Parts: sequence; C-alpha cells; structure tokens
Amino acid sequence: MEILLTGATGFLGGYVLRSLREAGREVCCLVRSASRTEAVEPYASMILRYTEYCELYGLLERIRPETVIHMAGRFLGEHGPESIEDLLDSNIKFPTVLLDAAHRAGCRRLLNTGTCWQRYGGAAYDPVNLYAASKQAFEDCAAYYVRAGGWTALTLQIFDTYGSNDPRRKVLNLVHALKDKESLDLSPGAQKLYFCHADDVAAAYRRALELLEVQVPGTARTWAVRGDTAYTLREILETYLDVSGRRVVLNWGARPCRDREFMDPEGLGEPLPGWKPRYGLRAGLEKYEREWTI
Amino acid sequence: MEILLTGATGFLGGYVLRSLREAGREVCCLVRSASRTEAVEPYASMILRYTEYCELYGLLERIRPETVIHMAGRFLGEHGPESIEDLLDSNIKFPTVLLDAAHRAGCRRLLNTGTCWQRYGGAAYDPVNLYAASKQAFEDCAAYYVRAGGWTALTLQIFDTYGSNDPRRKVLNLVHALKDKESLDLSPGAQKLYFCHADDVAAAYRRALELLEVQVPGTARTWAVRGDTAYTLREILETYLDVSGRRVVLNWGARPCRDREFMDPEGLGEPLPGWKPRYGLRAGLEKYEREWTI
Repeated sequence: MEILLTGATGFLGGYVLRSLREAGREVCCLVRSASRTEAVEPYASMILRYTEYCELYGLLERIRPETVIHMAGRFLGEHGPESIEDLLDSNIKFPTVLLDAAHRAGCRRLLNTGTCWQRYGGAAYDPVNLYAASKQAFEDCAAYYVRAGGWTALTLQIFDTYGSNDPRRKVLNLVHALKDKESLDLSPGAQKLYFCHADDVAAAYRRALELLEVQVPGTARTWAVRGDTAYTLREILETYLDVSGRRVVLNWGARPCRDREFMDPEGLGEPLPGWKPRYGLRAGLEKYEREWTI
Repeated sequence: MEILLTGATGFLGGYVLRSLREAGREVCCLVRSASRTEAVEPYASMILRYTEYCELYGLLERIRPETVIHMAGRFLGEHGPESIEDLLDSNIKFPTVLLDAAHRAGCRRLLNTGTCWQRYGGAAYDPVNLYAASKQAFEDCAAYYVRAGGWTALTLQIFDTYGSNDPRRKVLNLVHALKDKESLDLSPGAQKLYFCHADDVAAAYRRALELLEVQVPGTARTWAVRGDTAYTLREILETYLDVSGRRVVLNWGARPCRDREFMDPEGLGEPLPGWKPRYGLRAGLEKYEREWTI
C-alpha cells in the first residue's frame, strides 16, 4: 500500500483523500470503528477500522504502507477535565503507537499535521492551548523515530482553513448558516488570519509528498500552509457578505477576544516550498459559496 | 500543603522524600492505589492514592499544594508493543492531567524530572529512546501551563545515579549482588557516565526548590544533575571492586553496546546553580557499599 491516511472522515482529511485519489494515489484510510465512512468509501482504496490502539500492530503489518499521512486529531480550543484525556490520547498516544506499529511494518515516512497555534506570537514553540501543546508533544515522540529509527518526517503547520461543506463551528460557517436578517455576536474581529482554501491545503499535501520522497532520511522538516496575505476577521467576513449577497447582521465587539488569540501572526515559519495557494480571498470565498452541497 | 510529590515509592523519590522531611518540609505523596507504601509512610505528611487519572481533580482540590515535585515515571530502556501504552500514559498523560488538576487548585510551581537521555550526543533535544521522548513530550505539555497559565517550571535532567538499597537493574547493583567468584557479562564498558550519588541528587531537589521559589513566573528552566567528572563504566566498576574487596569476574566485551548508548556525553547542559555533588566517585561508592540494609 502506498499511503495510510488517518483523519479521512474529517473536513481537511476528506479534501486530501479526494485530491490524492484524483492524482492516482492508492490510499488506505484508517478510521475508528465507530466512524461513519459514507463520504470516504468512494475514494478509499481500502478502509481499516480499529477500536483499541494495540490492534494497530496487526493492521499495519497487514498493509505495510510506504507513507503515513497523519491528519486525525481531536481539536479543542479549550479543554476541561472531561475532555483532557481524550485530547491527549487522540493527539499523542494514538499517533505514537501508530508510528511504532508502522516502524515495525517497515514504514519510514511520515507526513504530519501541525497547527499554527504551536507558534503563538511567532515563537518557535509557544502553544496557544493544550491542543497545540499535544501536537508538539507528538512531534517530539516522532523525533525518536526520525533520529533513532531513520524516519523522514515532514510536518505541515496549518493556519486557518475554509471550504464548502465544512461542518466545523468556525465563524465563516456560522455566518454561512445564517438566514437573511439573522444576527451573530462576534469579537472585535481584529485578529489577522491567513485564510487558506481546503483545495489549496490538499494541493500542499500532494506537494509535501513529493518533497518527502526526496528528503534525507533521519531528518524532520516543518513548513507553514497558509494564505498569501493576512486579513482581519472583519475583512474576511465583509468580503464574504459582499460575495454572497447575504443580508445578515454582524455585531462586532459584542463578544470578548479569546485568551491568547492570535492578533498578528507575523513570522510564523516558512511556507511549503514549491507550493502557492491558487485562490486569493475573494476567489476562494466565491468558490466556498458556490460549492456547498449539504 | 507545601509539596505534592509523585514517585516517592521509587528509588530516587524515596531519597528525595526523606531528604525533604529532614529539612522540615511538609510533603504529601501521590501514589497509585496498588503501590506498596511501607517505606514511604514514616516520612510522608499524607499519602493520597488514585486509580483513575480523573480522580486527580478532586484530590488536588482537597490538598491545594504550593509546589508539585514530579518524580514518577515509567523507565524503559527499550519499549515494545506490550509496554508502549503504559509508557505514554505514565510519562505524558498522567503528569499532564496532574498539572491540569493542580492548575485548577491554584498551584503554579512544578519541579520536574527529566533525563540526560533527552540529549543524545549533546543536542538540545535528541532522544536516546522513546522513554526520553516521552519526557520531552510532557515538557511540551507543561510549557502550555507555563506560557498560558503563569506557572514556574524547573526541570532537573538526571544523569546516572546510584545509592544503597537501589532495586533498579543497573550494572553496579548487579555487581553488588554477585557472590565471590561469580561472573557477569558486560559491554566493552567504554561509555562515560557522570555518576551521582542519590544523596547528592536529593540535595539538588532541595536546592531546586529554593531556586523555583524565586524564579520568574511564566518561565521554564532546565538544569543538569550529574557528577563532577565523567568516568567510563569500566573505571567505575573497577573502583567499586577495589572499594568493596569483592572477588568477582567481569567479562568486558562479552555483550554488545546498546543502540544509541552514550559514549561521551560532553556538553550536556549547565549543572544546577548553587549545587555541587558532595561525594566523589570513591567516597560515594564507599558510602554505597556501607549503607545497604536490605
């Protein structure tokens, strides 16, 4: 098997899966037993289900992938006592056991998914939340396989993304779901975002696969995946209202800023070499508005 | 409560507990339900037991410690499919949930235990094994509480340690357990070790507590705890045979070196300021030999 993909049932994972299949890649999707896979089935070469992490050893031995693309993750802006264990299991323990199983099955290539939230204020590492810290913690576990096991690893640090049929509770999707004259309370909206369309993110994963295949074994690289230009949330949503012709009321400043919210994410790592986003803000939002099917 | 200590039932944890009590500190020991605590009971101000990690929230709320000293850990030179989950749970998930619970209970100080194995070849981070990677991964999680939660954290990176009544399967203890004329197969013994007596390690924790109390909130520091001088394993064991008068046969070179074993750990971080080991190699080994009671 060429590629083992985790997170295919998620929003970005679905875009990446479809994009890899269109490019003729053979992709096995690894999903939890309880996951719904209707949307994945038309594109996956194979679907493997697991309940316990210990099952991963047998599954990986069976399919022996050349590359693991890890996109699964539990996202939490803020955690609580009821969610912290699932956060740590999903974002650290699961992918580490997966790498261990893949290593035993002869795999030596990881395309990993990080978040710009690992780099609050442009630091090499300063986590916005425990979610971002858990992503970093997995990278440090992966470093063992890179340094001691000869793996090649490439992490894409993903900035803000959007695309049609996005089920995530993100502000753009909330506005999309509003009817005319409905209103939404928002923060002052001064935070700058490097909005990137999911089709561009998927193209970044295809490009990263090419780079990974020629990267020196025993090395790990990290690249940013983000839009060319930073826009404030206010600019983004005003452009969207213009593009979509929606007549909704946005109450700017009715909600406080979130703790440790990015206000000006400058200097946040080098963009992935040989990749550029195809969609600027207006073209991307037009595509976003046009392609919803659910 | 002044101090919450994890790992008190372990070898180094026991030395630190006794040392803190001799210095008049109030120490609550947090142990697993199944742990034997006979050796801890005479020194602990209080013993708290847990089975599930979620119980930590209630326990921490009850005792509200000023400082968490984290010494618990699952040590594994090499892991396997049967041990990897316990390794990750014990070394990443447990202390992260513990910090989360302590944070909610108002605690803002962590004295943490790392290992020189996080720094293979003198790198800032290059893990010898997955055990060392799991220690680094926890530091990534702790960084969230430091940066976003205002914690002060100090990590002691511990080098090779020894002391009487040490139940760990370390070479010195194996030689100690030999009877006259018995033999032991060993690697060539060229690896250099900064041997440090457990009484000196305990003094380092007391010193680190003082430093932690004046360290700027929102910062994390890492210091090395190691002997003054690097000796080869061969020098160490030959000194021990001399000191102890034991007549045993050491078969040097009968076993291979371990993968990624330290051969020359130069440049491995600054030693803890204001602390110096009291025992040189010979004096420490004399003390080691003299004080066994089991």
